[in-house]
Amino acid sequence: MSTVWGSKIRLTVFGESHSSAIGVVIDNLPSGISLDMAEIEREMARRAPNGGEYSTPRTEADKVEIVSGYFNGVTTGTPLCGIIYNSDTRSGDYDQLKEVVRPGHSDYGYYRKSGGNNDYRGGGHSSGRLTAPLVFAGAICKQLLRNKAVYIGSHISSIGNIKDATFDARVDGNMLENLTKEVFPLISTDKFASMNYLIQEARSEGDSIGGTIECAVVGLPAGVGEPFFESIESKIASLLFSVPAVKGVQFGKGYELAKMKGSKANDAFRCLGGRVFTATNNNGGILGGISTGMPILFDVAIKPTASIFKEQDTINVVTGENVRLKLQGRHDSCIVVRAVPVIEAVAAIAIYDLLRDREDI
Amino acid sequence: MSTVWGSKIRLTVFGESHSSAIGVVIDNLPSGISLDMAEIEREMARRAPNGGEYSTPRTEADKVEIVSGYFNGVTTGTPLCGIIYNSDTRSGDYDQLKEVVRPGHSDYGYYRKSGGNNDYRGGGHSSGRLTAPLVFAGAICKQLLRNKAVYIGSHISSIGNIKDATFDARVDGNMLENLTKEVFPLISTDKFASMNYLIQEARSEGDSIGGTIECAVVGLPAGVGEPFFESIESKIASLLFSVPAVKGVQFGKGYELAKMKGSKANDAFRCLGGRVFTATNNNGGILGGISTGMPILFDVAIKPTASIFKEQDTINVVTGENVRLKLQGRHDSCIVVRAVPVIEAVAAIAIYDLLRDREDI
Amino acid sequence: MSTVWGSKIRLTVFGESHSSAIGVVIDNLPSGISLDMAEIEREMARRAPNGGEYSTPRTEADKVEIVSGYFNGVTTGTPLCGIIYNSDTRSGDYDQLKEVVRPGHSDYGYYRKSGGNNDYRGGGHSSGRLTAPLVFAGAICKQLLRNKAVYIGSHISSIGNIKDATFDARVDGNMLENLTKEVFPLISTDKFASMNYLIQEARSEGDSIGGTIECAVVGLPAGVGEPFFESIESKIASLLFSVPAVKGVQFGKGYELAKMKGSKANDAFRCLGGRVFTATNNNGGILGGISTGMPILFDVAIKPTASIFKEQDTINVVTGENVRLKLQGRHDSCIVVRAVPVIEAVAAIAIYDLLRDREDI
Amino acid sequence: MSTVWGSKIRLTVFGESHSSAIGVVIDNLPSGISLDMAEIEREMARRAPNGGEYSTPRTEADKVEIVSGYFNGVTTGTPLCGIIYNSDTRSGDYDQLKEVVRPGHSDYGYYRKSGGNNDYRGGGHSSGRLTAPLVFAGAICKQLLRNKAVYIGSHISSIGNIKDATFDARVDGNMLENLTKEVFPLISTDKFASMNYLIQEARSEGDSIGGTIECAVVGLPAGVGEPFFESIESKIASLLFSVPAVKGVQFGKGYELAKMKGSKANDAFRCLGGRVFTATNNNGGILGGISTGMPILFDVAIKPTASIFKEQDTINVVTGENVRLKLQGRHDSCIVVRAVPVIEAVAAIAIYDLLRDREDI
Repeated sequence: MSTVWGSKIRLTVFGESHSSAIGVVIDNLPSGISLDMAEIEREMARRAPNGGEYSTPRTEADKVEIVSGYFNGVTTGTPLCGIIYNSDTRSGDYDQLKEVVRPGHSDYGYYRKSGGNNDYRGGGHSSGRLTAPLVFAGAICKQLLRNKAVYIGSHISSIGNIKDATFDARVDGNMLENLTKEVFPLISTDKFASMNYLIQEARSEGDSIGGTIECAVVGLPAGVGEPFFESIESKIASLLFSVPAVKGVQFGKGYELAKMKGSKANDAFRCLGGRVFTATNNNGGILGGISTGMPILFDVAIKPTASIFKEQDTINVVTGENVRLKLQGRHDSCIVVRAVPVIEAVAAIAIYDLLRDREDI
Repeated sequence: MSTVWGSKIRLTVFGESHSSAIGVVIDNLPSGISLDMAEIEREMARRAPNGGEYSTPRTEADKVEIVSGYFNGVTTGTPLCGIIYNSDTRSGDYDQLKEVVRPGHSDYGYYRKSGGNNDYRGGGHSSGRLTAPLVFAGAICKQLLRNKAVYIGSHISSIGNIKDATFDARVDGNMLENLTKEVFPLISTDKFASMNYLIQEARSEGDSIGGTIECAVVGLPAGVGEPFFESIESKIASLLFSVPAVKGVQFGKGYELAKMKGSKANDAFRCLGGRVFTATNNNGGILGGISTGMPILFDVAIKPTASIFKEQDTINVVTGENVRLKLQGRHDSCIVVRAVPVIEAVAAIAIYDLLRDREDI
Repeated sequence: MSTVWGSKIRLTVFGESHSSAIGVVIDNLPSGISLDMAEIEREMARRAPNGGEYSTPRTEADKVEIVSGYFNGVTTGTPLCGIIYNSDTRSGDYDQLKEVVRPGHSDYGYYRKSGGNNDYRGGGHSSGRLTAPLVFAGAICKQLLRNKAVYIGSHISSIGNIKDATFDARVDGNMLENLTKEVFPLISTDKFASMNYLIQEARSEGDSIGGTIECAVVGLPAGVGEPFFESIESKIASLLFSVPAVKGVQFGKGYELAKMKGSKANDAFRCLGGRVFTATNNNGGILGGISTGMPILFDVAIKPTASIFKEQDTINVVTGENVRLKLQGRHDSCIVVRAVPVIEAVAAIAIYDLLRDREDI
Repeated sequence: MSTVWGSKIRLTVFGESHSSAIGVVIDNLPSGISLDMAEIEREMARRAPNGGEYSTPRTEADKVEIVSGYFNGVTTGTPLCGIIYNSDTRSGDYDQLKEVVRPGHSDYGYYRKSGGNNDYRGGGHSSGRLTAPLVFAGAICKQLLRNKAVYIGSHISSIGNIKDATFDARVDGNMLENLTKEVFPLISTDKFASMNYLIQEARSEGDSIGGTIECAVVGLPAGVGEPFFESIESKIASLLFSVPAVKGVQFGKGYELAKMKGSKANDAFRCLGGRVFTATNNNGGILGGISTGMPILFDVAIKPTASIFKEQDTINVVTGENVRLKLQGRHDSCIVVRAVPVIEAVAAIAIYDLLRDREDI
């Protein structure tokens, strides 16, 4: 139940951080689509642990093997299964976690849920590693959306208390596509130095730091989305909160709207040369769960990486003793950077699911 | 697809603001449950438009007629359908909206989505009125949760820029149940005067004002929740964003976590007398989508009521002309107050759906 | 879970034989469809208990009140809820069934399933009365299919051991539509006398008799259906076995195929003037779960009405005693006749669900 | 949508006859279950093509690699993915099928459905080969059911017009388990010679022959099953018709019931020493979709293998020409034998899905 998602397409995700493989089955893709494999690899590389400046030293090629649903260079319309073999697993790093749960991680909850039968190595199924299949599925959805002239992109809107600018009325497909080419996408690139300083400081302390990501979807016409339980916000949010470390989301001006009066929050509709738009976009392109034709805008809060190298208080779940834990292993000091393509991926999946059967778009 | 929700129980919502009736079918409730009708009526009354200080003057008794699934004073386990007849409908108020879309409402999106066939009276299916069946379903789920010693309550955490205190470690079932008895639930009741001033000011100006609601769930043991797409956050968020006017949600410290270092954000596990807890609860009782046994905490941003009496810029969707619109009718100047029981209701539904088949809880 | 069905549209059925109302919510219908109410009433009348020759004496108008999703004479695309109020309920007839279960009915299973909390009056939720909402939903789907030039009809293929002829290559939309106008639809009308004799004989004995119904769907192009779990056969069969009294189904030649050699069972493809067809249609228009473009043919076994007036052996579920039961009340002596529109209805629902988003058909 | 199934557990099947691998993801299995791998291999071997007397000469080890959801010898409760690599693929055998569709197969429908993008090699996704993952999933469910004292077994109830005896009141778990050890399971083993003669005759003619399989489930208590759309019959039938070549199903006496009077068809309830049973079991242990506690009985019609070596009439779908086709490759002359474990597997999956969250059973 829990790892199957979608209405028009259907995603099934499987795997653990240290299982032999992880992967995803995507059902109900259209047939006859030639996938841009270079583009998929580029998206996978954005998320992959590569030993780079903002990544865990664990190195995984994250090469996806498509084992079904693809024939003669096009999709067949049958379930497309993509598998990623885990290679650089050092399970020994996790021996100390057989009985000791890591603060900030799901270890304790899973231990209780599974009666102690969970795969504790690297968080098992709830590892951030499981976002790799999401990025693969998202890369396919991005391509399908691009064919409908719908574009998705994002930037790091804050690290700690350093904020980037926000998307404004000028956001367009070109700008978004360019952002996806940056390792550290920013609107105001002069914010990089201070953001990077915070990250390096956290790293040098054996600590980690959180941040936020703002994402935009442009090109979506008015009238997309379903009432109530499949509102655009519901669909995107349900996937965002499947991504480890996401703890908040706001659409449009979000929490700022809660401080406004209606006369300011409402976006006035205007028509110019037959084109309908709103003078402002406080509601982030969504009203009543349905698109207005303006850019979809949302912002996500990412908590700091839970894995840190500072000694922490915790418990031994078997003995019930209070203990001190000092993690070993390989961890990102700021997961926000590698989370960027994941957030875009789940937005692409959610939006494509809404558009799958709209022949008019 | 869009108005059916749930995994273990299943909710189907139907109706429009001015249709003859609205309602909900709840499938897979346990059999043999005697519903506390007085409690259900009390919950319905909390949300009902009653002409009171914080409500639209439209008056609806919001009496629910249970037409199936209930026999000899107990649930039968077959689908329970609750119907609420609309009575005080003044459709004439909406004649001007046949062609003119209201800013801040879903009118334009629905017009495009339905090819102009939407019921424009009072927002039709996307009206806030559709939260009445949710409150009914939530009242049943609250009762079922109470039987498992799980309690839900909330307070108005802000109106405009005036903030209430937040839930702290002392939150318990008693405190939460007491909050549900207040029309204007606050932790720091001395904030009422300034909050109320903002609301009355907005009303006198023909305007509206937004706010936030903080909700808590206590009594949920560790190990509840599903991985990934049915994380507790995903389930609650997907329902929250089905509620009109919700534009943001954060769990635990939410956006504050994004500014923290990991060493501060992580909640240290402790064990005392056999009871496991965390020293802080920054993560709002949820790690990796699974409960930790600490109180579930989340906060919701509610935008100001979109219906205001100030003249606004908008368009005639049929002619494409830019027009000025001055709304008539009956509207809340601050929807936050009546949203409180709705937020609790959807939290109850989400949590109960996760617990439905857990015999151990 | 159990009373929600469908992938593209979604049906939620509720009610009991003697609850105040029964009904259905149909989600995701297209917007802008003007329903032919006379046609819907005609379909409802085919199934309704009317005190006629082949019906229980219980009389229900089975007038459907559409309470949502319909505005200004067209569908809005939001959930359409149709309610049928129960009127001629004589619950007193069922007093003897509080503790005594009827052979051939679900009473015993429901008693165990619900811990004795089931509504025992007339079978409660599992009553044949619940097929009324299905006929309503089917009437809408039939109309939507007719707009795509897809037609559904059926005939009574046997009563007891008296068989009608079977559909052959000449079946077409016109023939099927004509069959739906008959109370006792037959291909070889000369079989009526002997079939009717069996029914009247059963009635006079206080007994009942079973039969079979053959159904055809014409106009479905090749390439409709989904692989595996949503094969046309899976979809139709899953709904057929939701209809009380259905105990078997075969597609095309069905059980005859099991006796054949492949060289005879295989339908040869032919092309004539650009039109593809098969020389025979042993497979009933479905291969590998997907349509071939030939008529869809299937046949359903309906067991004799379980309610008979002969004294029967059974048990008192409370005391565990063996008892004798002589039913009172009002029952059909041959449910096959009134089942005809139900079988067509569920076929229409299943087929429409597969076609809902095919813009090309 | 089409290759995801289930309510409590969820199955996702992927792969094609000649893709690099086929497999299944099973979600929501209980945690802490140690799988009997020898038993799984035995079940896989029953279905596997092994070059034996009743099998295609294609040889596949059908070794399942469990890549996730299994750790330290027990299930973790997270999605369990089993992959089977295809090895003995001779795609060259299918070159002639690029444009020519095989009678009796889904080739034509898939060609139309996919716009010519289907994997035509060996039927692609609709190949009988995809039943291997179902047998794997079924083997797990069988084991889980056995833990609840529920047993499944079956026999070949007919080949062509030669019939075996049928299950009677004496069917029990021991008898069923013994049947699963037979290559050619029969109740009346003296029927083997004549059945085998028909198969060998068909083989020598380059033809094939159909048959039927009767399956029984014992140990299921009364009160299992859901009303309407998840009736036991609906659940089993929806999966049965996902299995290639299945064209009919009947529960209990099935089509015989349609000829009976109610007084004979109804199974009288009896109570003896506190145990409730029915004197006959014409309804196959299911009334109103719910179990009665008697053995579940159903019978399935399997059409003759569509792949035969006789020359057949068909078309070239690209040119629209009528052509003659003589198949090459490797095919079963009677698929019924290898279908036996598949029918049991899908029955096990359907029944386990109904029982997954019943702690009382």
